[in-house]
Amino acid sequence: MRNLLLSVIAALMFMPFAFSQNQNVPNLMPLPKSIQYQSGQLTIDSSFSTAITGHNEERLQRALARMTTTLGRQTGLTINGKSGDAANATLVIHADQASEEVQKVGEDESYDLTVTAKGANLKAANPLGILRGLQTFLQLVELTPKGYAVPAVTIKDEPRFPWRGLMIDVSRHWQPIEVIKRNLDGMEAVKLNTFHWHLSDNQGVRVESKKFPKLQEMGSDGHFFSQEEVKDVIAYGRDRGIRVIPEFDWPGHSTAFFVGHPELASGSGPYSIEREFGIFDPALDPTKESTYKFLDAFIGEMAALFPDPYFHIGGDEVNGKEWDRNPKIQEYMKAHGIKNNDELQATFTKRVQEIVAKHHKTMVGWDEILSPEIPKSIVIQSWRGPVSLAAAAKQGYKGLLSFGFYLDLFQPASFHYLNEPISGKAAELNDEEKKMILGGEACMWSELVTPDTIDSRIWPRMAAIAERLWSPQNTRDVRSMYTRMEAESMRLEWLGLKHRSYYQPALERLVESNDIAAIKTLADVVSAPQEYGREGVHVAQTGHVYRSTESYNRLVDATKPESITAVEFGFMVDDLLAKKATPAEIEKMKTMLTAWRDNDPKLQPQLQASFLLKEAVPLSQTLSATANSGLMALEYLQNGSKPAPGWASQQMAAIDAGKKAQGELLVAIAPAVQKLVKAAGAQ
Amino acid sequence: MRNLLLSVIAALMFMPFAFSQNQNVPNLMPLPKSIQYQSGQLTIDSSFSTAITGHNEERLQRALARMTTTLGRQTGLTINGKSGDAANATLVIHADQASEEVQKVGEDESYDLTVTAKGANLKAANPLGILRGLQTFLQLVELTPKGYAVPAVTIKDEPRFPWRGLMIDVSRHWQPIEVIKRNLDGMEAVKLNTFHWHLSDNQGVRVESKKFPKLQEMGSDGHFFSQEEVKDVIAYGRDRGIRVIPEFDWPGHSTAFFVGHPELASGSGPYSIEREFGIFDPALDPTKESTYKFLDAFIGEMAALFPDPYFHIGGDEVNGKEWDRNPKIQEYMKAHGIKNNDELQATFTKRVQEIVAKHHKTMVGWDEILSPEIPKSIVIQSWRGPVSLAAAAKQGYKGLLSFGFYLDLFQPASFHYLNEPISGKAAELNDEEKKMILGGEACMWSELVTPDTIDSRIWPRMAAIAERLWSPQNTRDVRSMYTRMEAESMRLEWLGLKHRSYYQPALERLVESNDIAAIKTLADVVSAPQEYGREGVHVAQTGHVYRSTESYNRLVDATKPESITAVEFGFMVDDLLAKKATPAEIEKMKTMLTAWRDNDPKLQPQLQASFLLKEAVPLSQTLSATANSGLMALEYLQNGSKPAPGWASQQMAAIDAGKKAQGELLVAIAPAVQKLVKAAGAQ
Repeated sequence: MRNLLLSVIAALMFMPFAFSQNQNVPNLMPLPKSIQYQSGQLTIDSSFSTAITGHNEERLQRALARMTTTLGRQTGLTINGKSGDAANATLVIHADQASEEVQKVGEDESYDLTVTAKGANLKAANPLGILRGLQTFLQLVELTPKGYAVPAVTIKDEPRFPWRGLMIDVSRHWQPIEVIKRNLDGMEAVKLNTFHWHLSDNQGVRVESKKFPKLQEMGSDGHFFSQEEVKDVIAYGRDRGIRVIPEFDWPGHSTAFFVGHPELASGSGPYSIEREFGIFDPALDPTKESTYKFLDAFIGEMAALFPDPYFHIGGDEVNGKEWDRNPKIQEYMKAHGIKNNDELQATFTKRVQEIVAKHHKTMVGWDEILSPEIPKSIVIQSWRGPVSLAAAAKQGYKGLLSFGFYLDLFQPASFHYLNEPISGKAAELNDEEKKMILGGEACMWSELVTPDTIDSRIWPRMAAIAERLWSPQNTRDVRSMYTRMEAESMRLEWLGLKHRSYYQPALERLVESNDIAAIKTLADVVSAPQEYGREGVHVAQTGHVYRSTESYNRLVDATKPESITAVEFGFMVDDLLAKKATPAEIEKMKTMLTAWRDNDPKLQPQLQASFLLKEAVPLSQTLSATANSGLMALEYLQNGSKPAPGWASQQMAAIDAGKKAQGELLVAIAPAVQKLVKAAGAQ
Repeated sequence: MRNLLLSVIAALMFMPFAFSQNQNVPNLMPLPKSIQYQSGQLTIDSSFSTAITGHNEERLQRALARMTTTLGRQTGLTINGKSGDAANATLVIHADQASEEVQKVGEDESYDLTVTAKGANLKAANPLGILRGLQTFLQLVELTPKGYAVPAVTIKDEPRFPWRGLMIDVSRHWQPIEVIKRNLDGMEAVKLNTFHWHLSDNQGVRVESKKFPKLQEMGSDGHFFSQEEVKDVIAYGRDRGIRVIPEFDWPGHSTAFFVGHPELASGSGPYSIEREFGIFDPALDPTKESTYKFLDAFIGEMAALFPDPYFHIGGDEVNGKEWDRNPKIQEYMKAHGIKNNDELQATFTKRVQEIVAKHHKTMVGWDEILSPEIPKSIVIQSWRGPVSLAAAAKQGYKGLLSFGFYLDLFQPASFHYLNEPISGKAAELNDEEKKMILGGEACMWSELVTPDTIDSRIWPRMAAIAERLWSPQNTRDVRSMYTRMEAESMRLEWLGLKHRSYYQPALERLVESNDIAAIKTLADVVSAPQEYGREGVHVAQTGHVYRSTESYNRLVDATKPESITAVEFGFMVDDLLAKKATPAEIEKMKTMLTAWRDNDPKLQPQLQASFLLKEAVPLSQTLSATANSGLMALEYLQNGSKPAPGWASQQMAAIDAGKKAQGELLVAIAPAVQKLVKAAGAQ
């Protein structure tokens, strides 16, 4: 396979080193294992048509219809051609045989796509590979001076990891079915294959139980998925080659279960739906047989509803305080020689694993479920990191990486992109052990998102993670990634995702005006502190934690998790300092810095008129000051002249203001401007 | 009522004369009959709550829930308050009694809204008035330096006309149910009360008939509304105080009926779904009893499906050619003393009216259904104009104005806004006769729209028409209208309408890049020729007419039907020439003209790289040249200096290029720039 990898690298050579719009970049994401360009191109026009040879099934027909619709929206073409005979079709697909009735982990997703000026052929062992290849075909369609076209190309592709997922938390902030569906559309576009549905937590049980209706009636504020909706989502996922795995988080993170069923808890109750976020005391009572009787019935009901062979039982972050406070539990532990809460949780996990297995499912859980007595069949999802994952693999446990893939932490796409599952301790594993690492899952925890903003937290960064999990390990060119991610981001728009379209109305709301030029200039180059910084600042400044009842209508909610403008500016600064900047780049930097410097006076009247924007007053001033420093530095660097002694350190200190949160936001260009100032000062 | 009207005019005095963003404008659309401001304001925050006193029904509860959701999206507030007791509620609604089971034309829609710092009270005779008043309340919510608030105010309001509608043609281009629903949401927001569903035409029969399934099976390309969907739309409309009236267009405009039922036609068939637009020969055979037997059964089925007492049978644009060619029909005419095709259509209309009446409905039709023998109970919808409408009213026929309200003709909001139903001949009617004019309907004919672009053709101009039909006749301040229409346009965004959000992706598609600054600068100031100019240019340039199978992905499709930027520029030019322009306005004009002048070199590479944009090459050049003329003229006017002889006429000729279509688009600032040049030349 080495020669195939080389051809990918050759393709990457066409890319410009700078993060910029360039027609030579193959706008594919994730990049395929092998791509060979030929001369010529296939015209795509209104006569576009498809045909099926080989194995045929309704799912494939629906996939072609869906793909044709997307092609129509992406190009604006009214496509007249129907699915017809292979001799005349623009695109012929051929699957050798049916795929598994319930999609399996590791099932063949490979495909071969050949495009010539005469037509395109997509071949795969089964419909899964066809689904993946259709997305590649859609991404290849490009606008040319003569029409839409797909370049002549031969692609051989298959995923690196068999488990490539997205978890969405629908408990902390309710997300209705349309949010789920449009995100499944996005997942299909970037070849993800696993949707992990975090259906319960302290803030809500989000699924209808017919056996225990008090769960959703009392534990969901009326926001839950009916079993019909669950089936609808599963079928929607199946059509897109996406497995759907439910998670019910036990024994902690389960307050919402106790609102309707306090008898399951270790405390005395009564319980109410949690409105804050974090780790709380309530936990299932692992010492009562009635707990396992309930779990057997509930898991049985859910195991029948969800066809996937995996079943996620959570298991994370039990603080054990309710256990400590309950004399009966303490007695039980003594009687059974259980030394501490970790051991107590291990006995619980073991019992739950037996129940899950009884219902013909394989248990998945977070790091904490790992204990000496747990069978090797389970899968560990690691939020703790590669060390934990590698240790599990060494012991013979399968694992998934989620550490480094948390989409709620305002981390840059580049960070997620370079978060390699087989790194650190895992890189030291032998080949057999490495195979135990099945892949990874991005996690969208929903503390700070609403249905209006959640897409912008998931996309487009999810596409970078999808490439990490699909493409060859050495696909690591960050600038190429940003270029292709932006192109993919535009295409995702046509699927109905709102990660771009939410932005303008959100800014308009902040100023109650369609005159958003100034607020957009600010919003484009600020972002929230990474990891849990935003929450920390919030507590420090307001004296209280975020709650699910909060209004998420501030500038920090409107801004994107990563400033792409700042990324682009940063690359240009790097080019400049490496003496590789083009005159156009330098001109652009000056224009940007000038616009930022001059923005504050234009914006201040709007900031003053809006109670929502008062907190942005110092932030806007800091942006102006930072840009001013940048402009001065740029001038010194261009003139080659030496600033006065102390100038640089003075500027550095001033710019530092933008590296501290103001209104829970940072000035995202501050680090790059400091690079400029440092370089100017060193002249 | 005169004193109430005066108070509206007093409120208008607060508005700036220029079309601009200003906090003093009451952002209401349509303007109410009477508005009196008091001091103080009602705070709107997360504790917002509602209560119902008086008549209570589920529709009112749903209306409050929907209104609260919209308030939440419009403000970003997470609203915790629930519907509760009147003593503590922010907003208390009180309807005296239930409304009619099937909404009646002329049913009371009046309401009184009183807002103080302590709370808001909304009173109405029945739930319809409450629905209207809730929209007023939502429009009153404004962003202030201290929070969201509604100003203390007393509003007494009622509509001027009882029939205020929107017609959507779903035949020429299919529009799925989500398009219909989001447009009903928009209709509710501006107090419209009638949705006219143009369900059949040459290009498709768009409703499921259980009695005649071949209609939709053979005459719709698979795009039709099931009867369940129809019921869903009717219930959706009912919830929003909107009547739903079906139209089936007979005896012309009915080719799609004949695909499955050629025996109904006057020609010999076979027939196929029409792909072009216009007037075609096929027409029902009005001489066969079997035609009326079919219509009786079909109208019976549809009359049972649609509860509204009105039933629209079309009746427009019969060219009579199939009748002329059919010997049996000619024989029949001779035998019955029918002198011409108009008389033949009249006999048909009379029979259809009897059938409609038999099924307990009142017939509505276009101008052509009016004939001496037709009973006075029918309603004439006038596409021909006020003369036709006035003549009908004089004869005792009720009428609706649609002439001047065609949204597909790229006419400015100001044109539609000033299209007064009681004008011209109608203004000469006596009071009793004037009452025969029930109101009007905007018409969205769908030749040139897709589900992606249709909202942008309807909104926000529909809001201006809604004001014409709701507000007092003397509400005619065009600048105020534009200011308020833009504010309403932003609010409509939160209902899910796509009239704004479609724009960026459409422009990105044209350049296949997120760098849309240059193409947006062009697109913002161009618009298609008015009336049928676009079609005319298309035929002249391509040699063929538009078809339903065309790709609607060009710049002319992405642009909005009216350039709001050009409107704003035009107002500033008027101010300048009236010597009323502020220095800020003059500065803004210069900035705009400079940006337009300098745009072409930036845009040309993108135009050259996109086959879709090749046609915009001369248009972009014309914009630059036009702006250059404008800048020169502005300089002459500011200096008070005299241009060289012949300068003005030379410029005028050059700018004329922008008044001729290029790529089916005009330079929308050309008329205003010519005013500048003319004034400069006259110095």
